[in-house]
Amino acid sequence: MAKEEKKDKQEEKRNRKAELKALREKLMTQQQKIRDKGLPVIVLVEGWATAGKGNLINQIISELDPRFYNVTTHRIDPEAKSRYPFLYQYFRHIPENGKIMIYDSGWMEDCVQKLMGREITKDEYKNRIRSVNEFERQLRDGGYLILKLFLDIDEEEQEKRIRDIRENIETEWRVEDNDLWQHREYKLFRETYETFMEKTGKQLPWHVLDGKKKNAAACEALKLLTDMIDKALDKGRYVGKPFEEKFPLLKMPKLADVDLSMELTDEEYREQLKPLQKRLAKLHNVIYRKKIPVILCYEGWDAAGKGGNIRRVARPLDPRGFDVMPIASPEPHELARQYLWRFWTRLPRTGHICIFDRTWYGRVMVERIEGFCSEDDWKRAYNEINEFERQLTEWGAVVLKFWIHIDQDTQLARFNDRQSNPEKQWKLTEEDWRNREKWPVYEEAIDEMLQKTSTKNAPWVIIESNDKKYARIKALTIVIDALEKAIEARL
Amino acid sequence: MAKEEKKDKQEEKRNRKAELKALREKLMTQQQKIRDKGLPVIVLVEGWATAGKGNLINQIISELDPRFYNVTTHRIDPEAKSRYPFLYQYFRHIPENGKIMIYDSGWMEDCVQKLMGREITKDEYKNRIRSVNEFERQLRDGGYLILKLFLDIDEEEQEKRIRDIRENIETEWRVEDNDLWQHREYKLFRETYETFMEKTGKQLPWHVLDGKKKNAAACEALKLLTDMIDKALDKGRYVGKPFEEKFPLLKMPKLADVDLSMELTDEEYREQLKPLQKRLAKLHNVIYRKKIPVILCYEGWDAAGKGGNIRRVARPLDPRGFDVMPIASPEPHELARQYLWRFWTRLPRTGHICIFDRTWYGRVMVERIEGFCSEDDWKRAYNEINEFERQLTEWGAVVLKFWIHIDQDTQLARFNDRQSNPEKQWKLTEEDWRNREKWPVYEEAIDEMLQKTSTKNAPWVIIESNDKKYARIKALTIVIDALEKAIEARL
Repeated sequence: MAKEEKKDKQEEKRNRKAELKALREKLMTQQQKIRDKGLPVIVLVEGWATAGKGNLINQIISELDPRFYNVTTHRIDPEAKSRYPFLYQYFRHIPENGKIMIYDSGWMEDCVQKLMGREITKDEYKNRIRSVNEFERQLRDGGYLILKLFLDIDEEEQEKRIRDIRENIETEWRVEDNDLWQHREYKLFRETYETFMEKTGKQLPWHVLDGKKKNAAACEALKLLTDMIDKALDKGRYVGKPFEEKFPLLKMPKLADVDLSMELTDEEYREQLKPLQKRLAKLHNVIYRKKIPVILCYEGWDAAGKGGNIRRVARPLDPRGFDVMPIASPEPHELARQYLWRFWTRLPRTGHICIFDRTWYGRVMVERIEGFCSEDDWKRAYNEINEFERQLTEWGAVVLKFWIHIDQDTQLARFNDRQSNPEKQWKLTEEDWRNREKWPVYEEAIDEMLQKTSTKNAPWVIIESNDKKYARIKALTIVIDALEKAIEARL
Repeated sequence: MAKEEKKDKQEEKRNRKAELKALREKLMTQQQKIRDKGLPVIVLVEGWATAGKGNLINQIISELDPRFYNVTTHRIDPEAKSRYPFLYQYFRHIPENGKIMIYDSGWMEDCVQKLMGREITKDEYKNRIRSVNEFERQLRDGGYLILKLFLDIDEEEQEKRIRDIRENIETEWRVEDNDLWQHREYKLFRETYETFMEKTGKQLPWHVLDGKKKNAAACEALKLLTDMIDKALDKGRYVGKPFEEKFPLLKMPKLADVDLSMELTDEEYREQLKPLQKRLAKLHNVIYRKKIPVILCYEGWDAAGKGGNIRRVARPLDPRGFDVMPIASPEPHELARQYLWRFWTRLPRTGHICIFDRTWYGRVMVERIEGFCSEDDWKRAYNEINEFERQLTEWGAVVLKFWIHIDQDTQLARFNDRQSNPEKQWKLTEEDWRNREKWPVYEEAIDEMLQKTSTKNAPWVIIESNDKKYARIKALTIVIDALEKAIEARL
């Protein structure tokens, strides 16, 4: 190399270092503002094995206060069959407001490896791509900043790096079977990465960085990140606009038109209850063996009889295979994350049944009515919830949603009964009375919810509960029916 | 059978059923009071394979409101090497106040199987027995009700049941290899169960139930449970008295006697920092491969320089292998459980490093001084914390605790600097000033803490931080030293 040229190179290197330093300092000052504004930031670092993802992450975080960021690693084990929907592990780790979460590879690698290893079909892969787009959009619309990086190296470079690492006894263990597999199939992997980026890059772009130029790649990553943060600090937290995707919806009646006169005599009830519970117990065994996850959602008016209904369904179940999740108002660490997070983290494992006593539908009922979220937020939620539930059913879950329904007179009678009965008084609160006064606005919200979120795979079922006995038998019958169908479909 | 005798049998059966029903109803009414008083209840159901644990649990819970209890199953896979201390999975599942948690087998089966399978040595088994006693006592002293049941059947009965289950094609899959192993080694298992119960039955008794008599066993279990709850409802929540076990303690100086004059020049600091960080980075790799868990605890005065110190230690670490856990005041779901729960659930996996930015020592500092717990509570905590940390080091963890120390003048200078610097103002709160006024009471509490909880395996190290540079180099040096020793010990 000519002397002149060498000097230029050195100059360039020095400049690069100075640039890196300046960018890191910028990020460091931004971190405080991110915290103050409660902005959550996601950095997804994908790329080839040996491309230098670890190093890149180190360059990004080296000046950050460790209290404000986290790194989560997602090693994909092609053999491990997960017990949760595939997005579970990524949703679980979304940062809370004011923090940065760096994913050391994530949903891209997960999808590509599973497809390449033929662990999922092409159709399942398509569904995953759609789910990824939904996942990213939901977070973006919920105010998350998302930066997606892909660290690229060519085949030759990868070969050289793998050789170097394996030749050194201290680092040899770092090369894993998956890395070698990826290298053997380099061309196919490249093709798959590229189509993945094409299909998930429209709403949130991918940034491909050159893994051969360490410092330049780090500079670019830091520049993208700090620019993104600057914009967000300037404009304020983003709130996504509502939009409607066409889901195949079931036609639901208006609540006002529901006939609530059905009832059972004590004798009819006693005759039917035990045999149904026995059948359900048997089905639970099959569900467990076939690893079918089941999600039962209970919503309903205060004093409609949710608790008693849940109890009748839960009693025959093997307690080792089900959970009841009572959903109260969110705690601070839950409020600090996208609203579906506290439900994602409560999903049952395959083969298990989870009964949600109140659900994510709080978003379009109490949160809408009490103004706990913005209008855009709850209007967007219908679609987001449909997506969420589709992801669950595509995972293989049975999803049923019960609206436990009574009329106003029945509610009043039950409130009065509770008030005069010392054993039941704890069940009645001031809030129940306040909510009762808002019956018409609730009814409007519920009607809209039923119209917009009753899908074929995750239907709403109205359970007429003026007569609790009738309601319990109906709920049991419908659960049994759904489980039988799911088992049949798996044969 | 004579007619008379048959009649008696039937009569007895009817009585038993009536008794069961009455006991269940009693438990049902108690459940509301448990909730009101915020009592947490643990029922541990251990026993032989095929003894009927599932059935017993079903009998206990069948009338309960599923919102107020939970069942957690702990299948022990003798092959699975856990990445957490063995009590982790049990501590993780302790109920919150007002709820009942039923353990479908638990720490007893875990200990016995591991010993029988020679996965742990006799010494490790002894340590586990001690840990179990500590675990149960800590929960009891924290106000938990604990009922321990062992469902017993003899060898002949077990043989018969295993045969019956295996002969039925529908239930065949339920018999697992472990069950067959247990049956083959019935006598040895019996012996081990018995000594386990002997060694863990002194402070909280075991109740052995006859698995051959299903309903009688259920009655007895329900009777024990309802009596225990009655007593607790009557006497109010139990608070354990403090006591002192002799731990081998290191002699610590009083804070007032600590020489804070040490300092480093900028040059000395620069010269030493990078090489130390490089060494730490290398050690982190070894730690990771050798699966040694590392727990670094930071406590210190406000403005002592904790954050900057943590940052210097964290920077060289591979972000995939460490976490910083900032500990703020507990959230409601954390307050609703024993105070160590939120730390148990944050432990690092083997091979990972966790840096706690504030720790469980809040119990004997802020909680003591602000009256957030009773005097008995914080006085008991010294011993409980020593036990907790011993459990961690016996698991193989490196545990280091830093007290980042400054004097009052230095604190004042830094507070003033923060106040006058807009970039740093967020670091200073009203509470910091209030805490500063309480310096003498804090100093007394800290001195006591240092005297009582600096053990050989989990020592306190005072980091003199009037000069932050000196403090950072000292912390790094000590971490490196401890890691090197741990690695050497594993060779």
